[in-house]
Amino acid sequence: MRKFPRLSTCHEDPTPYPPGTAYMDGQYLPIGEARISVLDNGFLHSDATYDVAHVWNGAFLRLNDHLDRFFAGLDKLHMTIPYDRAQVTEILCNCVALSGLQNAYVEFICTRGLSPRFSRDPRDCQNRFIAFAIPFGSIANPAQLKHGLHVAITDLLRIPPASVDPTVKNYHWLDLVKGLYAAYARGADTAILVDGAGNIAEGPGFNVFAVKNGAILTPKNGVLQGITRQTIFDLSAALQVSCTAGTLSPAALITAEEVFVTSTAGGVMPVTRIDGQPVGSGKIGPITARMTEQYWRLHDDPQMRTVVEYPKMPDTGTPGA
Amino acid sequence: MRKFPRLSTCHEDPTPYPPGTAYMDGQYLPIGEARISVLDNGFLHSDATYDVAHVWNGAFLRLNDHLDRFFAGLDKLHMTIPYDRAQVTEILCNCVALSGLQNAYVEFICTRGLSPRFSRDPRDCQNRFIAFAIPFGSIANPAQLKHGLHVAITDLLRIPPASVDPTVKNYHWLDLVKGLYAAYARGADTAILVDGAGNIAEGPGFNVFAVKNGAILTPKNGVLQGITRQTIFDLSAALQVSCTAGTLSPAALITAEEVFVTSTAGGVMPVTRIDGQPVGSGKIGPITARMTEQYWRLHDDPQMRTVVEYPKMPDTGTPGA
Repeated sequence: MRKFPRLSTCHEDPTPYPPGTAYMDGQYLPIGEARISVLDNGFLHSDATYDVAHVWNGAFLRLNDHLDRFFAGLDKLHMTIPYDRAQVTEILCNCVALSGLQNAYVEFICTRGLSPRFSRDPRDCQNRFIAFAIPFGSIANPAQLKHGLHVAITDLLRIPPASVDPTVKNYHWLDLVKGLYAAYARGADTAILVDGAGNIAEGPGFNVFAVKNGAILTPKNGVLQGITRQTIFDLSAALQVSCTAGTLSPAALITAEEVFVTSTAGGVMPVTRIDGQPVGSGKIGPITARMTEQYWRLHDDPQMRTVVEYPKMPDTGTPGA
Repeated sequence: MRKFPRLSTCHEDPTPYPPGTAYMDGQYLPIGEARISVLDNGFLHSDATYDVAHVWNGAFLRLNDHLDRFFAGLDKLHMTIPYDRAQVTEILCNCVALSGLQNAYVEFICTRGLSPRFSRDPRDCQNRFIAFAIPFGSIANPAQLKHGLHVAITDLLRIPPASVDPTVKNYHWLDLVKGLYAAYARGADTAILVDGAGNIAEGPGFNVFAVKNGAILTPKNGVLQGITRQTIFDLSAALQVSCTAGTLSPAALITAEEVFVTSTAGGVMPVTRIDGQPVGSGKIGPITARMTEQYWRLHDDPQMRTVVEYPKMPDTGTPGA
């Protein structure tokens, strides 16, 4: 008989992890301990919803809006968690506090989980809540924030709303990942995907905005209802700049005076090249610059902030972008 | 200052797991130890491909076909693993052998992994190979296998090929899960989703076949190229039954003489009701019965089998469906 390998008792994880703190199953844990079973439907069927809020200078921005979206997503997916909004807020604050991070990327997740009887019926599954705080990260690196992103407009179809509701924040990213590889092959930093009519949809983790004749336009349908996207609407109203959601064609994007993208992961980020061609002057435009400035100024507004109380210990995190 | 919760060192997982053995990071582990980081892009972006083979009476069926599809999927997703076909085969056989399961569901996965520098660029990620064997499971339970499944035809759009290549086996299932909930609400057991033209696509984990005038028809495009689907083509050729891939409309499905679905998880499974109405006579038809019988007979064909050698220990598994 052949020799069989040994069955180990415990997984020895060789993966390097960033600093950070997670919450799952009633425990606060180092981020490397936050692992889900390969049998969880959140992995096996990407049957999960989530949200990402960020902490800047020790406070969450617009946390209530992220909570609204998360709890609405749970309802739409027929999921429940044993925590209300106040409890989720406390868990998120604890993750940040225990991580010591003053600038953090804070993700909270509900997975379908497993059925205790191992049935294939999602109604039998015990839904699972997980949260974690890791160092703040941005879609654009410092050089890209300074000089602008170079994006490629692909002909890839963003997963349509008739398949997956984009207002439920989800992990269905294979189309976006394919877009990234297509963009890299064309020398660009990131990609934009289109909708069923060939108009601009969104990119990997961001909403898209075009400025023409001083007015701002962003795609209306088939896109994530981004919180930073909403912030652009709010800032535009305050600054008396026209900002509407509608149809944005590739041609309109290419000929725009300015283009920028928005994400919790980075805020407002300039786009200065599309498929090798400069956008407008090829430099960061005045409206993009103004929105970026106002966006970061908003972080000082007490109405927007949920302040995190930290234990007395040094910040172990890395500075933000 | 408020009191902060304690940071635990190690996750205490309360989840019950089925019997089974997994492989990851060079270790063979109890299935409950096979957990991936919440930071793995295989979870966070469902950026992964996989395959599922099954073991019946101590042997894999058509393992080479599953390996072909898996390695082709890796290439399409720009992923690499440090194992060749022979090594993957050895790992899969070891998982089954150490599990002791004579009838097993054997899944092998490659996730994008994490970037050691925590960049957002998928090219920086270390791809991760995981495999596991758990007890064999079927989409249809014993009663459904005996009397036939009741399926609902939904108007939900299966994620289209222009978004995600269905020939790369993937975990993008939110559309299929939505279909399941819609089916349950209508009193059905499972759901069928449609393509962009409103024709039949596939269901949660299965391909669809209709029999009319003694000939078999299955959707051609926008569906998983199932190995069991291929087996139906092969069996049909051997039995001199016409079997073609083409356009299958909902009307053609409803008026079919027989309907069946196929999956590695269950083989050939009869459908006897669609949206409350009987299919044909409402009983399992002769071609479905013949295909089912031939499918299970195929498991004795030495050319189709990869025999697993087991250590001398009792079978800890549960009997198959």
